[in-house]
Amino acid sequence: MKLADLTVREFADLVASDAPAPGGGSVAAYYGGVGAALTAMVACLTQGRKKYAEFAGHAAEVEAKAKALQAKLLDVMDRDTDAFNVVSDAFGMPKETVEQKAARSAAIQEGLKGCTRTPMEMMELCDETVTLAASLIGRFNETSASDLGVAVLSLKAGIQGAWLNVLINIGSLKDREFAEEYRKRGEALLAHALPLADECYAEILTLIEG
Amino acid sequence: MKLADLTVREFADLVASDAPAPGGGSVAAYYGGVGAALTAMVACLTQGRKKYAEFAGHAAEVEAKAKALQAKLLDVMDRDTDAFNVVSDAFGMPKETVEQKAARSAAIQEGLKGCTRTPMEMMELCDETVTLAASLIGRFNETSASDLGVAVLSLKAGIQGAWLNVLINIGSLKDREFAEEYRKRGEALLAHALPLADECYAEILTLIEG
Repeated sequence: MKLADLTVREFADLVASDAPAPGGGSVAAYYGGVGAALTAMVACLTQGRKKYAEFAGHAAEVEAKAKALQAKLLDVMDRDTDAFNVVSDAFGMPKETVEQKAARSAAIQEGLKGCTRTPMEMMELCDETVTLAASLIGRFNETSASDLGVAVLSLKAGIQGAWLNVLINIGSLKDREFAEEYRKRGEALLAHALPLADECYAEILTLIEG
Repeated sequence: MKLADLTVREFADLVASDAPAPGGGSVAAYYGGVGAALTAMVACLTQGRKKYAEFAGHAAEVEAKAKALQAKLLDVMDRDTDAFNVVSDAFGMPKETVEQKAARSAAIQEGLKGCTRTPMEMMELCDETVTLAASLIGRFNETSASDLGVAVLSLKAGIQGAWLNVLINIGSLKDREFAEEYRKRGEALLAHALPLADECYAEILTLIEG
Protein backbone atom coordinates (compact mmCIF):
# COMPACT_ATOMS: atom_id res chain seq x y z
CA MET A 1 0.00 0.00 0.00
CA LYS A 2 1.52 3.29 -1.08
CA LEU A 3 0.92 6.38 1.05
CA ALA A 4 0.19 8.37 -2.13
CA ASP A 5 -2.81 6.09 -2.75
CA LEU A 6 -4.41 6.75 0.64
CA THR A 7 -7.08 9.42 0.74
CA VAL A 8 -6.16 12.75 2.24
CA ARG A 9 -8.30 11.87 5.26
CA GLU A 10 -6.83 8.36 5.64
CA PHE A 11 -3.31 9.77 5.47
CA ALA A 12 -4.05 12.20 8.32
CA ASP A 13 -5.75 9.42 10.32
CA LEU A 14 -2.79 7.08 9.84
CA VAL A 15 -0.39 9.82 10.95
CA ALA A 16 -2.55 10.41 14.05
CA SER A 17 -2.55 6.71 14.97
CA ASP A 18 -0.03 4.95 17.17
CA ALA A 19 1.61 3.44 14.07
CA PRO A 20 5.08 5.00 14.24
CA ALA A 21 5.16 5.38 10.44
CA PRO A 22 4.24 7.44 8.55
CA GLY A 23 5.53 10.19 10.77
CA GLY A 24 7.23 13.51 10.34
CA GLY A 25 9.56 12.27 7.60
CA SER A 26 6.90 11.28 5.09
CA VAL A 27 4.85 14.34 6.06
CA ALA A 28 7.84 16.59 5.28
CA ALA A 29 8.17 14.97 1.85
CA TYR A 30 4.47 15.54 1.20
CA TYR A 31 4.78 19.22 2.08
CA GLY A 32 7.61 19.45 -0.41
CA GLY A 33 5.44 17.72 -3.02
CA VAL A 34 2.48 20.03 -2.42
CA GLY A 35 4.83 23.03 -2.47
CA ALA A 36 6.00 21.86 -5.90
CA ALA A 37 2.35 21.40 -6.96
CA LEU A 38 1.46 24.96 -5.90
CA THR A 39 4.51 26.25 -7.81
CA ALA A 40 3.28 24.38 -10.89
CA MET A 41 -0.23 25.80 -10.42
CA VAL A 42 1.00 29.39 -10.23
CA ALA A 43 3.24 28.84 -13.26
CA CYS A 44 0.28 27.35 -15.11
CA LEU A 45 -2.03 30.26 -14.26
CA THR A 46 0.66 32.69 -15.50
CA GLN A 47 0.50 31.22 -19.01
CA GLY A 48 -2.18 32.13 -21.59
CA ARG A 49 -2.76 35.55 -19.99
CA LYS A 50 -2.13 38.62 -22.18
CA LYS A 51 -0.97 40.64 -19.15
CA TYR A 52 1.76 38.11 -18.40
CA ALA A 53 2.65 37.15 -21.98
CA GLU A 54 6.32 38.06 -21.56
CA PHE A 55 6.63 35.59 -18.66
CA ALA A 56 4.85 32.69 -20.39
CA GLY A 57 8.01 30.97 -21.63
CA HIS A 58 9.65 30.98 -18.22
CA ALA A 59 6.39 29.91 -16.56
CA ALA A 60 6.07 26.92 -18.90
CA GLU A 61 9.57 25.81 -17.95
CA VAL A 62 8.84 26.25 -14.25
CA GLU A 63 5.60 24.30 -14.56
CA ALA A 64 7.30 21.31 -16.16
CA LYS A 65 10.17 21.28 -13.67
CA ALA A 66 7.84 21.72 -10.68
CA LYS A 67 5.69 18.79 -11.78
CA ALA A 68 8.78 16.59 -12.10
CA LEU A 69 9.89 17.62 -8.58
CA GLN A 70 6.39 16.94 -7.26
CA ALA A 71 6.58 13.36 -8.58
CA LYS A 72 10.02 12.85 -7.02
CA LEU A 73 8.90 14.20 -3.64
CA LEU A 74 5.84 11.94 -3.61
CA ASP A 75 8.09 9.02 -4.40
CA VAL A 76 10.51 9.78 -1.56
CA MET A 77 7.51 10.13 0.78
CA ASP A 78 6.83 6.42 0.37
CA ARG A 79 10.48 5.44 0.42
CA ASP A 80 10.97 7.26 3.72
CA THR A 81 8.34 5.12 5.41
CA ASP A 82 9.91 2.01 3.83
CA ALA A 83 13.30 3.06 5.22
CA PHE A 84 11.78 3.51 8.66
CA ASN A 85 10.27 0.03 8.51
CA VAL A 86 13.70 -1.46 7.79
CA VAL A 87 14.95 -0.07 11.11
CA SER A 88 11.83 -1.25 12.94
CA ASP A 89 12.37 -4.76 11.56
CA ALA A 90 16.05 -4.68 12.56
CA PHE A 91 15.07 -3.82 16.14
CA GLY A 92 12.93 -6.96 16.12
CA MET A 93 15.88 -9.25 15.23
CA PRO A 94 16.97 -11.85 17.80
CA LYS A 95 19.61 -10.77 20.32
CA GLU A 96 20.39 -13.93 22.26
CA THR A 97 23.91 -14.73 21.12
CA VAL A 98 26.92 -12.48 20.51
CA GLU A 99 26.61 -13.13 16.77
CA GLN A 100 22.92 -12.26 16.79
CA LYS A 101 23.61 -9.08 18.71
CA ALA A 102 26.29 -8.05 16.22
CA ALA A 103 24.07 -8.83 13.23
CA ARG A 104 21.16 -6.93 14.78
CA SER A 105 23.30 -3.90 15.57
CA ALA A 106 24.77 -3.86 12.06
CA ALA A 107 21.28 -4.09 10.54
CA ILE A 108 20.06 -1.22 12.72
CA GLN A 109 23.03 0.93 11.74
CA GLU A 110 22.52 0.18 8.04
CA GLY A 111 18.81 0.96 8.43
CA LEU A 112 19.57 4.29 10.12
CA LYS A 113 21.76 5.26 7.17
CA GLY A 114 18.79 4.60 4.89
CA CYS A 115 16.65 6.80 7.17
CA THR A 116 19.22 9.56 6.79
CA ARG A 117 19.46 9.32 3.01
CA THR A 118 15.72 9.72 2.35
CA PRO A 119 15.26 13.01 4.30
CA MET A 120 18.49 14.30 2.71
CA GLU A 121 16.93 13.64 -0.69
CA MET A 122 13.86 15.58 0.45
CA MET A 123 16.07 18.48 1.50
CA GLU A 124 17.76 18.54 -1.90
CA LEU A 125 14.44 18.38 -3.75
CA CYS A 126 12.86 21.09 -1.55
CA ASP A 127 15.87 23.33 -2.06
CA GLU A 128 15.59 22.90 -5.81
CA THR A 129 11.86 23.64 -5.67
CA VAL A 130 12.30 26.77 -3.52
CA THR A 131 14.79 28.05 -6.09
CA LEU A 132 12.22 27.39 -8.82
CA ALA A 133 9.40 29.09 -6.89
CA ALA A 134 11.67 32.07 -6.18
CA SER A 135 12.36 32.43 -9.90
CA LEU A 136 8.66 33.33 -10.37
CA ILE A 137 8.89 36.41 -8.14
CA GLY A 138 8.34 39.49 -10.27
CA ARG A 139 7.10 37.46 -13.22
CA PHE A 140 3.92 35.63 -12.32
CA ASN A 141 0.15 36.10 -12.25
CA GLU A 142 -0.25 38.14 -9.08
CA THR A 143 -3.83 37.06 -8.46
CA SER A 144 -2.13 33.81 -7.33
CA ALA A 145 0.22 35.57 -4.92
CA SER A 146 -1.17 33.79 -1.86
CA ASP A 147 -0.73 30.42 -3.62
CA LEU A 148 2.92 31.14 -4.35
CA GLY A 149 3.27 32.23 -0.72
CA VAL A 150 1.84 28.94 0.51
CA ALA A 151 4.18 27.12 -1.90
CA VAL A 152 7.16 28.76 -0.24
CA LEU A 153 5.81 28.06 3.27
CA SER A 154 5.31 24.41 2.28
CA LEU A 155 8.85 24.06 1.00
CA LYS A 156 10.27 25.69 4.12
CA ALA A 157 8.30 23.33 6.37
CA GLY A 158 9.38 20.45 4.14
CA ILE A 159 13.09 21.18 4.29
CA GLN A 160 13.08 21.95 8.02
CA GLY A 161 11.02 18.85 8.74
CA ALA A 162 13.38 16.70 6.69
CA TRP A 163 16.33 18.23 8.54
CA LEU A 164 14.89 17.15 11.91
CA ASN A 165 14.73 13.64 10.50
CA VAL A 166 18.33 13.75 9.29
CA LEU A 167 19.42 14.97 12.72
CA ILE A 168 17.50 12.44 14.78
CA ASN A 169 18.98 9.60 12.71
CA ILE A 170 22.60 10.74 12.57
CA GLY A 171 22.45 11.11 16.35
CA SER A 172 22.29 7.31 16.63
CA LEU A 173 24.88 6.54 13.94
CA LYS A 174 28.19 4.98 14.91
CA ASP A 175 29.76 5.89 11.55
CA ARG A 176 30.74 9.44 12.53
CA GLU A 177 32.22 10.21 9.11
CA PHE A 178 28.91 9.48 7.42
CA ALA A 179 27.09 11.45 10.12
CA GLU A 180 29.32 14.49 9.71
CA GLU A 181 29.05 14.40 5.93
CA TYR A 182 25.26 14.43 6.13
CA ARG A 183 25.22 17.16 8.76
CA LYS A 184 27.36 19.39 6.54
CA ARG A 185 25.28 18.71 3.46
CA GLY A 186 22.09 19.49 5.37
CA GLU A 187 23.47 22.69 6.86
CA ALA A 188 24.56 23.90 3.41
CA LEU A 189 21.09 23.25 1.98
CA LEU A 190 19.40 25.08 4.87
CA ALA A 191 21.79 28.02 4.51
CA HIS A 192 20.63 28.40 0.91
CA ALA A 193 16.94 27.53 1.10
CA LEU A 194 15.76 29.18 4.32
CA PRO A 195 16.81 32.79 3.62
CA LEU A 196 15.51 32.41 0.06
CA ALA A 197 12.14 31.17 1.32
CA ASP A 198 11.95 34.01 3.85
CA GLU A 199 12.76 36.62 1.21
CA CYS A 200 10.08 35.24 -1.09
CA TYR A 201 7.51 35.20 1.71
CA ALA A 202 8.34 38.82 2.59
CA GLU A 203 8.07 39.88 -1.09
CA ILE A 204 4.70 38.17 -1.41
CA LEU A 205 3.43 39.73 1.80
CA THR A 206 4.37 43.18 0.46
CA LEU A 207 2.69 42.37 -2.84
CA ILE A 208 -0.54 41.30 -1.12
CA GLU A 209 -0.62 44.11 1.39
CA GLY A 210 -0.02 46.59 -1.47
CA MET B 1 -16.53 15.40 -4.23
CA LYS B 2 -14.78 16.22 -0.99
CA LEU B 3 -11.06 17.06 -1.07
CA ALA B 4 -10.56 14.80 1.94
CA ASP B 5 -11.74 11.85 -0.19
CA LEU B 6 -9.15 12.41 -2.93
CA THR B 7 -6.00 10.36 -2.70
CA VAL B 8 -2.87 12.10 -1.54
CA ARG B 9 -1.54 11.94 -5.12
CA GLU B 10 -4.81 13.22 -6.65
CA PHE B 11 -4.89 16.11 -4.20
CA ALA B 12 -1.37 17.19 -5.23
CA ASP B 13 -2.24 16.75 -8.93
CA LEU B 14 -5.40 18.84 -8.57
CA VAL B 15 -3.43 21.57 -6.80
CA ALA B 16 -0.86 21.51 -9.62
CA SER B 17 -3.53 21.83 -12.31
CA ASP B 18 -4.90 25.09 -13.74
CA ALA B 19 -8.06 24.68 -11.67
CA PRO B 20 -7.87 27.74 -9.40
CA ALA B 21 -9.24 25.71 -6.47
CA PRO B 22 -8.03 23.99 -4.38
CA GLY B 23 -5.19 26.42 -3.87
CA GLY B 24 -3.19 27.77 -1.00
CA GLY B 25 -6.21 28.14 1.30
CA SER B 26 -7.22 24.50 1.36
CA VAL B 27 -3.57 23.46 1.47
CA ALA B 28 -3.03 25.62 4.56
CA ALA B 29 -5.99 23.95 6.26
CA TYR B 30 -4.57 20.53 5.42
CA TYR B 31 -1.22 21.44 6.94
CA GLY B 32 -3.08 22.44 10.08
CA GLY B 33 -4.92 19.12 10.03
CA VAL B 34 -1.74 17.08 9.58
CA GLY B 35 -0.05 19.16 12.29
CA ALA B 36 -2.91 18.19 14.60
CA ALA B 37 -2.54 14.54 13.50
CA LEU B 38 1.19 14.55 14.32
CA THR B 39 0.41 16.10 17.71
CA ALA B 40 -2.10 13.29 18.34
CA MET B 41 0.48 10.68 17.25
CA VAL B 42 3.14 11.98 19.62
CA ALA B 43 0.59 12.16 22.46
CA CYS B 44 -0.47 8.60 21.66
CA LEU B 45 3.13 7.28 21.65
CA THR B 46 3.69 8.94 25.05
CA GLN B 47 0.98 6.80 26.66
CA GLY B 48 1.49 3.21 27.80
CA ARG B 49 5.25 3.75 28.30
CA LYS B 50 6.62 3.22 31.81
CA LYS B 51 9.25 5.92 31.29
CA TYR B 52 6.57 8.51 30.56
CA ALA B 53 3.89 7.25 32.96
CA GLU B 54 3.61 10.57 34.77
CA PHE B 55 2.72 12.33 31.49
CA ALA B 56 0.13 9.76 30.35
CA GLY B 57 -2.89 11.62 31.67
CA HIS B 58 -1.94 14.87 29.99
CA ALA B 59 -1.01 13.02 26.78
CA ALA B 60 -4.42 11.32 26.65
CA GLU B 61 -6.11 14.71 26.92
CA VAL B 62 -3.87 16.17 24.20
CA GLU B 63 -4.55 13.21 21.92
CA ALA B 64 -8.32 13.60 22.17
CA LYS B 65 -8.21 17.36 21.64
CA ALA B 66 -5.75 17.09 18.74
CA LYS B 67 -7.95 14.55 16.96
CA ALA B 68 -10.96 16.86 17.32
CA LEU B 69 -8.93 19.77 15.90
CA GLN B 70 -7.74 17.54 13.04
CA ALA B 71 -11.36 16.81 12.09
CA LYS B 72 -12.27 20.51 12.21
CA LEU B 73 -9.29 21.49 10.06
CA LEU B 74 -10.13 18.85 7.44
CA ASP B 75 -13.68 20.15 7.40
CA VAL B 76 -12.62 23.77 6.86
CA MET B 77 -10.28 22.58 4.07
CA ASP B 78 -13.33 21.62 2.01
CA ARG B 79 -15.35 24.65 3.05
CA ASP B 80 -12.56 26.96 1.91
CA THR B 81 -12.72 25.58 -1.63
CA ASP B 82 -16.54 25.88 -1.50
CA ALA B 83 -16.18 29.52 -0.42
CA PHE B 84 -13.80 30.17 -3.31
CA ASN B 85 -16.24 28.67 -5.77
CA VAL B 86 -18.97 31.06 -4.56
CA VAL B 87 -16.77 34.00 -5.62
CA SER B 88 -15.93 32.35 -8.95
CA ASP B 89 -19.64 31.88 -9.63
CA ALA B 90 -20.35 35.50 -8.69
CA PHE B 91 -17.76 36.70 -11.19
CA GLY B 92 -19.69 34.76 -13.83
CA MET B 93 -22.98 36.63 -13.15
CA PRO B 94 -24.41 38.84 -15.93
CA LYS B 95 -23.29 42.49 -15.97
CA GLU B 96 -25.35 44.04 -18.75
CA THR B 97 -27.68 46.32 -16.80
CA VAL B 98 -27.06 48.59 -13.83
CA GLU B 99 -29.13 46.25 -11.64
CA GLN B 100 -27.16 43.22 -12.82
CA LYS B 101 -23.89 44.99 -12.14
CA ALA B 102 -25.00 45.91 -8.62
CA ALA B 103 -26.23 42.36 -7.90
CA ARG B 104 -22.98 40.89 -9.24
CA SER B 105 -20.82 43.24 -7.22
CA ALA B 106 -22.82 42.54 -4.05
CA ALA B 107 -22.50 38.77 -4.62
CA ILE B 108 -18.73 39.09 -5.14
CA GLN B 109 -18.37 41.13 -1.96
CA GLU B 110 -20.45 38.63 0.03
CA GLY B 111 -18.39 35.80 -1.43
CA LEU B 112 -15.12 37.50 -0.50
CA LYS B 113 -16.33 37.75 3.10
CA GLY B 114 -16.88 33.99 3.05
CA CYS B 115 -13.33 33.55 1.71
CA THR B 116 -12.06 35.63 4.62
CA ARG B 117 -14.01 33.74 7.27
CA THR B 118 -12.67 30.27 6.33
CA PRO B 119 -8.94 31.10 6.55
CA MET B 120 -9.63 32.99 9.81
CA GLU B 121 -11.17 29.79 11.17
CA MET B 122 -8.01 27.94 10.08
CA MET B 123 -5.87 30.49 11.89
CA GLU B 124 -7.88 30.04 15.10
CA LEU B 125 -7.71 26.25 14.86
CA CYS B 126 -3.96 26.26 14.09
CA ASP B 127 -3.32 28.60 17.02
CA GLU B 128 -5.25 26.27 19.32
CA THR B 129 -3.31 23.28 18.00
CA VAL B 130 0.10 24.96 18.37
CA THR B 131 -0.80 25.69 22.00
CA LEU B 132 -1.67 22.03 22.45
CA ALA B 133 1.54 20.81 20.78
CA ALA B 134 3.57 23.22 22.92
CA SER B 135 2.00 21.77 26.05
CA LEU B 136 3.79 18.48 25.26
CA ILE B 137 7.26 20.04 25.46
CA GLY B 138 9.08 18.52 28.43
CA ARG B 139 6.51 15.79 28.87
CA PHE B 140 6.45 13.55 25.83
CA ASN B 141 8.12 10.47 24.37
CA GLU B 142 11.34 11.99 23.07
CA THR B 143 11.92 9.28 20.46
CA SER B 144 9.14 11.18 18.63
CA ALA B 145 10.88 14.55 18.91
CA SER B 146 11.19 14.98 15.14
CA ASP B 147 7.48 14.23 14.74
CA LEU B 148 6.54 16.91 17.26
CA GLY B 149 8.92 19.24 15.43
CA VAL B 150 7.19 18.58 12.11
CA ALA B 151 3.83 19.12 13.85
CA VAL B 152 4.92 22.59 14.89
CA LEU B 153 6.34 23.37 11.41
CA SER B 154 3.02 22.24 9.88
CA LEU B 155 1.00 24.46 12.15
CA LYS B 156 3.23 27.43 11.47
CA ALA B 157 2.92 26.92 7.69
CA GLY B 158 -0.83 26.45 8.18
CA ILE B 159 -1.39 29.68 10.10
CA GLN B 160 0.89 31.75 7.85
CA GLY B 161 -0.68 30.28 4.73
CA ALA B 162 -4.17 31.01 6.04
CA TRP B 163 -3.08 34.58 6.87
CA LEU B 164 -2.02 35.19 3.25
CA ASN B 165 -5.52 34.10 2.25
CA VAL B 166 -7.16 36.44 4.76
CA LEU B 167 -5.01 39.31 3.48
CA ILE B 168 -5.58 38.73 -0.23
CA ASN B 169 -9.35 38.68 0.31
CA ILE B 170 -9.68 41.67 2.64
CA GLY B 171 -7.66 43.66 0.10
CA SER B 172 -10.66 43.50 -2.27
CA LEU B 173 -13.34 44.14 0.35
CA LYS B 174 -15.33 47.37 0.25
CA ASP B 175 -16.57 46.87 3.84
CA ARG B 176 -13.51 48.37 5.51
CA GLU B 177 -14.84 47.79 9.02
CA PHE B 178 -15.10 44.05 8.38
CA ALA B 179 -11.65 44.10 6.73
CA GLU B 180 -10.04 45.88 9.68
CA GLU B 181 -11.69 43.57 12.21
CA TYR B 182 -10.29 40.52 10.41
CA ARG B 183 -6.88 42.07 10.01
CA LYS B 184 -6.70 42.73 13.76
CA ARG B 185 -7.91 39.25 14.66
CA GLY B 186 -5.36 37.70 12.34
CA GLU B 187 -2.50 39.81 13.65
CA ALA B 188 -3.37 38.88 17.23
CA LEU B 189 -3.37 35.17 16.38
CA LEU B 190 -0.01 35.43 14.60
CA ALA B 191 1.48 37.36 17.51
CA HIS B 192 0.60 34.43 19.77
CA ALA B 193 1.21 31.41 17.54
CA LEU B 194 4.40 32.28 15.64
CA PRO B 195 6.74 32.94 18.59
CA LEU B 196 5.29 29.88 20.34
CA ALA B 197 5.95 27.70 17.27
CA ASP B 198 9.49 29.08 16.96
CA GLU B 199 10.22 28.42 20.64
CA CYS B 200 8.96 24.85 20.33
CA TYR B 201 11.03 24.25 17.21
CA ALA B 202 14.15 25.59 18.94
CA GLU B 203 13.52 23.39 22.01
CA ILE B 204 13.08 20.32 19.81
CA LEU B 205 16.21 21.10 17.84
CA THR B 206 18.17 21.32 21.10
CA LEU B 207 16.63 18.05 22.27
CA ILE B 208 17.58 16.26 19.05
CA GLU B 209 21.05 17.73 18.78
CA GLY B 210 21.62 16.81 22.43
